[in-house]
Amino acid sequence: MSAPLSPRPLPVIPLLALTPVAGWLILRPLVTSVPLAALGASLGFSLLAFISSIYLVPALGPSFIKAGLKGRDLLKASNADIPESMGLICASIYILLLILFIPFAFSRFLVESYNGEGLSRMNFPLAQLSVYLSSILSLLMATLLGFIDDVFDVRWRHKLPIPLVAAIPLLLVYWAEGGNTHIVVPKFLRFIFGTVVNLGPLYYFYMSLLSTFSTNSINILAGINGLEVSQTLIIALSVCLNDALYLPWPKEFTIHIPVPSFLANIIGDRWTWTIGGIYGAGLAHGSKELVERHMLSLYFMLPLIGVCLGFMYHNWYPARSFPGDTFCYFSGMAFAVVGIQGHFSKTLLLFFIPQIFNFLLSCPQLFGLVPCPRHRVPRVDLKTSLLYPSVTKFEKSPNQLTQLVLKIFSALRFIRIERDAKTGKIISATNFTILNCVLVNVGPMTERTLVCVIMSVQVFSSFCAFAIRYGLAGLVYDGDRR
Amino acid sequence: MSAPLSPRPLPVIPLLALTPVAGWLILRPLVTSVPLAALGASLGFSLLAFISSIYLVPALGPSFIKAGLKGRDLLKASNADIPESMGLICASIYILLLILFIPFAFSRFLVESYNGEGLSRMNFPLAQLSVYLSSILSLLMATLLGFIDDVFDVRWRHKLPIPLVAAIPLLLVYWAEGGNTHIVVPKFLRFIFGTVVNLGPLYYFYMSLLSTFSTNSINILAGINGLEVSQTLIIALSVCLNDALYLPWPKEFTIHIPVPSFLANIIGDRWTWTIGGIYGAGLAHGSKELVERHMLSLYFMLPLIGVCLGFMYHNWYPARSFPGDTFCYFSGMAFAVVGIQGHFSKTLLLFFIPQIFNFLLSCPQLFGLVPCPRHRVPRVDLKTSLLYPSVTKFEKSPNQLTQLVLKIFSALRFIRIERDAKTGKIISATNFTILNCVLVNVGPMTERTLVCVIMSVQVFSSFCAFAIRYGLAGLVYDGDRR
Repeated sequence: MSAPLSPRPLPVIPLLALTPVAGWLILRPLVTSVPLAALGASLGFSLLAFISSIYLVPALGPSFIKAGLKGRDLLKASNADIPESMGLICASIYILLLILFIPFAFSRFLVESYNGEGLSRMNFPLAQLSVYLSSILSLLMATLLGFIDDVFDVRWRHKLPIPLVAAIPLLLVYWAEGGNTHIVVPKFLRFIFGTVVNLGPLYYFYMSLLSTFSTNSINILAGINGLEVSQTLIIALSVCLNDALYLPWPKEFTIHIPVPSFLANIIGDRWTWTIGGIYGAGLAHGSKELVERHMLSLYFMLPLIGVCLGFMYHNWYPARSFPGDTFCYFSGMAFAVVGIQGHFSKTLLLFFIPQIFNFLLSCPQLFGLVPCPRHRVPRVDLKTSLLYPSVTKFEKSPNQLTQLVLKIFSALRFIRIERDAKTGKIISATNFTILNCVLVNVGPMTERTLVCVIMSVQVFSSFCAFAIRYGLAGLVYDGDRR
Repeated sequence: MSAPLSPRPLPVIPLLALTPVAGWLILRPLVTSVPLAALGASLGFSLLAFISSIYLVPALGPSFIKAGLKGRDLLKASNADIPESMGLICASIYILLLILFIPFAFSRFLVESYNGEGLSRMNFPLAQLSVYLSSILSLLMATLLGFIDDVFDVRWRHKLPIPLVAAIPLLLVYWAEGGNTHIVVPKFLRFIFGTVVNLGPLYYFYMSLLSTFSTNSINILAGINGLEVSQTLIIALSVCLNDALYLPWPKEFTIHIPVPSFLANIIGDRWTWTIGGIYGAGLAHGSKELVERHMLSLYFMLPLIGVCLGFMYHNWYPARSFPGDTFCYFSGMAFAVVGIQGHFSKTLLLFFIPQIFNFLLSCPQLFGLVPCPRHRVPRVDLKTSLLYPSVTKFEKSPNQLTQLVLKIFSALRFIRIERDAKTGKIISATNFTILNCVLVNVGPMTERTLVCVIMSVQVFSSFCAFAIRYGLAGLVYDGDRR
């Protein structure tokens, strides 16, 4: 249509300064033996992911537009072409770096070079390599299928099984290696099932549902600039924070409180307080298995944060590039991978509270109870740039069940319904999404404000997730088995 | 442009008959324990690959045309749109089936269920799983990059590193697992290097060159209907035949020559001739490692033959669908995978003799000595449907070096040059490809005949390859170490 928006100018000097830092972190394990070298290298690769995506996204945008992968921003006055499916670039960078990372975590040479003590000298089992490879395979399949979806514009019904297909390598390798399908039973159910129950095939069903959920839940909470990528970013940061709790930090943080010499004879010099240390730190309580799982999770999450930050720079309001389905597929699959391989799927789901709420809210429209228009994003008033809730109109009077749902949702202030002034019949309702729900309750706001509100909700819900996981969970589970 | 060609009608009854056969082969190991069950399942998956590709290629053609992935046949009068990049369908079927095959070769349950004797009870090492996964990862990367190439129409210079990038998982896992980089030295060089020499990093360089070669050599020997797929098919069949020589066939083929009873007392009943048997058969001579390598190679080659046959049905003259770069990338990578993982890269290269010849022939054009037009395929006379060699014209008189090359190639009958009648200067030469070379030497022929000629050349060169490998190789190598 018209000329594309000029790309956002890059912060050249900070980027130039970051490059040697990334290089140093990656090359360090090759020249000297350090504890947790793989994690350092992973951090280096994440910086590289950030630098690559912030640089490549605008550089490759014109090629995408030329290949017809472009769209217009429905909530802007400009009808400039904006490159679409840029998630392909993020996914390619992400997966390539994950592959280049293989030797740092899994080669005999690097893993065994550090002769430190305890868990920081990990002897990372080579058997874990096939787990890692199957994860990358699933990510790559999700990327390819997502890109096929973007190119061929696959129909909604045919999209649904895509994450299932992409999860096959993950599940098959899990099965082939005789993966654990036991779960710990909540306390109040133990009188029926015992402490541990083997779910068997049901466990695989649960895992495939997890991949479908994590992928699609990001895909349906979308439509305004920066929304998909900011969700992914906050969830990835939350997973990282959770992982960090289980790490065997090699340093001891010792706080010495000076004891005056005249007192030392009496109370001794025991006024020191030590946290950390090779075995003692973290919630892993010396369990090598738990440490390995959370290390693996970090290897996947750190570069994801890198690409998200780089891409967000260009996807932030007003967006210069769109993520496309490719982005949602690969990022959703990344979460499924860490949840499944790290055995913390329940904790992971806690970080998806806004997405779960949005999915439950969407159900009446997804399952045909309420008419679902092609786009459910809020509508914009181009004069004021304010967003208002978008509505779905009822051509004919809704049936009894629909009316009941509308009344309940309206009473809960999830939606706002409009009635005919004369007859009192329901003629329209705001669309059933968290975006419209916020606008209904808070009032019209700009697109930038709305995405910030949703990000705040996501951050708040991550706080709640940690409170539930490490507070309330003690009521129904004992110990920290998962 | 105009309406697409109607797809070739499918042989419905044979396809329907094949489906239960495929199902039986795949499901058999689940219900009963059989020797070499994985190989049987692989054969079942190959049938499935054939059925899926012969059915899906025409079914999905219209979607490809709609998405702009279409082309016109330059050698036909019709200007109908023909779907392009259909290699994506082949690659997707191939990779999905390779993934679904994982449990048959690598799960404890199936591998250990057969309680037979010797090598047919393989106890397939789970360590091999990461090798298998890294191979699939490389195939999937080649597919994604090939498809990106088709969608974005990547420039020639940027294409070259694509197979290198796709080969990274293969090489990294090879390295991470401490892969063997020793090669056996030919007899006549042993006085310098000894019997075995460790190539170290050079070995990785050689392997990455192999992937680049096998991918691009198929890509440049292309342009007429059915050429890419028939090359792939014949090379894959040759690799399979070579693999079969190393298998521990569980059956003994015993030929009994009846001994008349009046003679039995004198010469005994020893007129029986036995080939096969668990340990004795094949060139593996009881080496479990050799058997495993060639089994792995078969797991990759059998489904490739399946998809190729299915796709060939629609790509055969006059073509209803085009392979695109995707096809060349994934099939070339499949050969690189078996050559590298199976440690028979030298034997593999012998099957590429026509491609090597075509590459060497192309060098003067690839490296700019002789002008290289956009298309080098033969030109067609639409009235007679006969193909004639295409030519490259010299705008100005070629320099000394080029003239020398032209004269040598012309004397060897690889090309035909045309001189100005008056000045005697070279004004044009046929393009430097095996296709034009055949047309120069044999004369004009139809497209169908030309592809058959090239196929015959490929088959003949495979015969030569076997003769060299199992005949001449004995002169420079002892034993059957690779």
